[in-house]
Amino acid sequence: MDGRGFLCGSLSIPSPSNSSFSHESLSRSLYFLNSQVHLPKRLSQFQPLPVLRLRCGNAQEMVTPEPSVSTPISDYHHIDQKLLQNMVYDALVWSSLHGLLIGDKSVEGSGRVPGVGLVHAPFALLPTSFPESYWRQACDLAPIFNELVDRVSLDGKFLQDALSRTKKADEFTSRLLDIHSKMLELNKKEEIRLGLHRSDYMLDEQNKSLLQIEMNTVSSSFAGLGSIVTELHRNIISHHGKLLGLDPGRIPVNTGASEFAETLAKAWCEYNNPRAVIMFVIQAEERNMYDQHWLSVVLRERHHITTIRKTLAEIDQEGELLPDGTLSLDGQPIAVIYFRAGYTPVDYPSESEWRARLMMEQSSAVKCPSISYHLVGTKKVQQELAKANVLERFLENKDDIAKLRECFAGLWSLDDSDIVRKAIESPELFVMKPQREGGGNNIYGDAVRESLLKLQQAGCEENAAYILMQRIFPANSTTYITRNGYCQKDQTISELGIFGAYLRNKDKVIVNGQSGYLMRTKVSSSDEGGVAAGFAVLDSVYLM
Amino acid sequence: MDGRGFLCGSLSIPSPSNSSFSHESLSRSLYFLNSQVHLPKRLSQFQPLPVLRLRCGNAQEMVTPEPSVSTPISDYHHIDQKLLQNMVYDALVWSSLHGLLIGDKSVEGSGRVPGVGLVHAPFALLPTSFPESYWRQACDLAPIFNELVDRVSLDGKFLQDALSRTKKADEFTSRLLDIHSKMLELNKKEEIRLGLHRSDYMLDEQNKSLLQIEMNTVSSSFAGLGSIVTELHRNIISHHGKLLGLDPGRIPVNTGASEFAETLAKAWCEYNNPRAVIMFVIQAEERNMYDQHWLSVVLRERHHITTIRKTLAEIDQEGELLPDGTLSLDGQPIAVIYFRAGYTPVDYPSESEWRARLMMEQSSAVKCPSISYHLVGTKKVQQELAKANVLERFLENKDDIAKLRECFAGLWSLDDSDIVRKAIESPELFVMKPQREGGGNNIYGDAVRESLLKLQQAGCEENAAYILMQRIFPANSTTYITRNGYCQKDQTISELGIFGAYLRNKDKVIVNGQSGYLMRTKVSSSDEGGVAAGFAVLDSVYLM
Repeated sequence: MDGRGFLCGSLSIPSPSNSSFSHESLSRSLYFLNSQVHLPKRLSQFQPLPVLRLRCGNAQEMVTPEPSVSTPISDYHHIDQKLLQNMVYDALVWSSLHGLLIGDKSVEGSGRVPGVGLVHAPFALLPTSFPESYWRQACDLAPIFNELVDRVSLDGKFLQDALSRTKKADEFTSRLLDIHSKMLELNKKEEIRLGLHRSDYMLDEQNKSLLQIEMNTVSSSFAGLGSIVTELHRNIISHHGKLLGLDPGRIPVNTGASEFAETLAKAWCEYNNPRAVIMFVIQAEERNMYDQHWLSVVLRERHHITTIRKTLAEIDQEGELLPDGTLSLDGQPIAVIYFRAGYTPVDYPSESEWRARLMMEQSSAVKCPSISYHLVGTKKVQQELAKANVLERFLENKDDIAKLRECFAGLWSLDDSDIVRKAIESPELFVMKPQREGGGNNIYGDAVRESLLKLQQAGCEENAAYILMQRIFPANSTTYITRNGYCQKDQTISELGIFGAYLRNKDKVIVNGQSGYLMRTKVSSSDEGGVAAGFAVLDSVYLM
Repeated sequence: MDGRGFLCGSLSIPSPSNSSFSHESLSRSLYFLNSQVHLPKRLSQFQPLPVLRLRCGNAQEMVTPEPSVSTPISDYHHIDQKLLQNMVYDALVWSSLHGLLIGDKSVEGSGRVPGVGLVHAPFALLPTSFPESYWRQACDLAPIFNELVDRVSLDGKFLQDALSRTKKADEFTSRLLDIHSKMLELNKKEEIRLGLHRSDYMLDEQNKSLLQIEMNTVSSSFAGLGSIVTELHRNIISHHGKLLGLDPGRIPVNTGASEFAETLAKAWCEYNNPRAVIMFVIQAEERNMYDQHWLSVVLRERHHITTIRKTLAEIDQEGELLPDGTLSLDGQPIAVIYFRAGYTPVDYPSESEWRARLMMEQSSAVKCPSISYHLVGTKKVQQELAKANVLERFLENKDDIAKLRECFAGLWSLDDSDIVRKAIESPELFVMKPQREGGGNNIYGDAVRESLLKLQQAGCEENAAYILMQRIFPANSTTYITRNGYCQKDQTISELGIFGAYLRNKDKVIVNGQSGYLMRTKVSSSDEGGVAAGFAVLDSVYLM
């Protein structure tokens, strides 16, 4: 789930764990839209080489240049500069008029009040090539993962056992497990179970395989803006693609926003109280609010369902658990709780937030996710599921099991002394992942060795706060990264997130499928692996 | 045309001519969305009285309160506070996702680079009541005014005579007249004539009549955002109108953006060069660029026509007049020149800009407007047309003439000593309008007396720089003015702009009709008359 908050991370100073991220690499080919544009400090450190000034607002399509019909999508190296300027300008205009927006950190209030301090979301100017066979493989996995999450969530003992050692090393997981235990004690059953997941993959260049990075079961973001950036790419290629030899039809339609909203609406229907509303649990400061608003707007316009937005603290203050189990906020019954907060310790600064979480879990509202679904998405459970013969405990279909296993990267507990020794010897082949959620916490390169040696001294309890994962080496491609009104060309790697929606009521599976996608692309650098760590931009898929 | 740039004016310190505008009046009922929001200095001077904090992003529709079905549109005084919060929040979200945006002056680059420094356009939360009979009257006038402008434009001698004294007193009008003279000397005929006008009206409360404020024949703005704000109002009332007793069907559909774009596209067709593009003449800094982009986007998406954007200085540098009269920019032929700059002396800082204007006028491109159309829109010509028996020189249809005359306010030259004496005695009954274009130049109240006395001392030549107009006294209504994420209730007056589109090729009239509308609303204060002077917000019409 480390990618969830990448937009926040992307516009802030890199955290210590990824401070080795090289900004110099970004400046190799920097194209100026306008040298007068105000830049955040970090960006202005770039020393642009080939400076190209966009003439005042040129929104012109190219008419004269010869089309280079055979240009493959992966070879953007020599796009005509005038065409490039026009595409960037058109893309910036399109983004502004079509809500591809985030809050601008430099403007106060932009994370709280809609309509102020807006800036286009960072995006790749053109979609990134992705082989169709791997695309289909990733899409096919969605319903299997959805089903797996549901099955595992029902096995309370498995979850408690798998996380028993993490519990001692990680306070946050421990608190989640406490709530989970309470629900087990109460024998609380979630009859209506709703999952809005995002499974993230990379294509490993060495092994020629699609490997799962992680499974997000809570607050899977960018179903909203992911749909919009796909529309942007289809629009840009519709108008300029001929000159680049690109076909908009090769960008898969992305219905993430409408399908997530529809699944939320169906969950609301199952709850069956027409007076009830859907509650988005949000952070008090949320610069990615427009991604969320896209879901609310579809819920309102298409499904005529009201959404309210509350922080955990507000839920603690205003919420009430009625005798029949109904969660009521300010007198209003809640049908569905959709978490866009609560996945990181930062969201629980006091006991108030934990009280709210417990109250919600105790209620009859449909939770997206329930505490069980949340725990299934932890890295430790991901690692446990990758062990031999574990999937077989939850799934019957041999084909499904084989398909899942095929996408599992190497995953190990730090109890495995052989692997730890190998990782100390060759840290570049591993990623060390803490249980801690939120972007930018993964450990790469020499820091893996240092961390492992430190843990060896500290004793084994701390080990349980981490897992080791095989380092994936995706292919590089060239991307025109566009942010803050600037466009810069660089070598990048990409991560494909496949959204999955799942809804069941008792024995009836109501929704189980793939629900759109999100490509994220970042500048590649030798000492980092995950797209989520460091700066990434919204992107989409160009099938090849 | 003083209203054209009102958004710029609205977010800047009031100019000296309207510095008497009382900001205190705005604070009478100020509702806080969030007390932490960054505010421009001017706004932060408000001393809010009833402070109401929006709980974290509440996007909830009201379910519980009793609907007040009979509330008339003009009585917003007692909207339930929670409903108000929800409507404001929804409106801010909707504006962000649907491109109801302007550049935020406080963010550098927001007037040059799209996608950065965005903020919602200031808007009235709900549309403003307007009697249906006057609405129809205003719409019916559009084709008549379109025809009148065209007829007057053909009478070069009339224009030169009408403006002969203004020419001496006003350098800007003088330069325009010079170009006009040159075209007369060359006997240059504009066979394809394109007008995208906006005629502004107010309802005079005392005389119960619809009176024209002015006729804009150049750079008539807000066809784009005007359409969007109408959509916003229909959306808000669709969701919340029942509680207020409002019907979205009573807001006239506003197709200003698509009709202006369609007329531009038809002009492009008449020019009949498929390689040619439409050029928007723009200011280098344009915070209202999204209003313009809406037209470009429709031209591109619906009509597959390319637009380019150039400043007057760029046109001088890159433009070339080919022997056949074609205007070529960087090798690209221009079919239609659409002026969104060039209407104010500020747009011509050097001879370069005047050279560009002359070159464009000499070209075969369709101009919107031609120099003749531009001159027809001057206040002096408006005043001349209001004289007895002048309309009859241009129009034959007696009904049409009567309809036009009915909407003419009193208009006088400063040569009329009787009127000047009256205005010195009762300045509150007059507005003094300088030829100078751009918002905020009109003179109201005691300043009328002072200015007239000063002019009497200076001698009569200066007189020609002004006209006197009957002061119109529109009814007050209550408006929730929303800007910078804040909403404040106040007493307001409104001005209705009716867009008109006109296109002819020789004897064939291709387009002549009303093309959407724009309501603008501002806080009323005793010492100001025009909506354009001072701060105004985008609004739409609610028929009653």
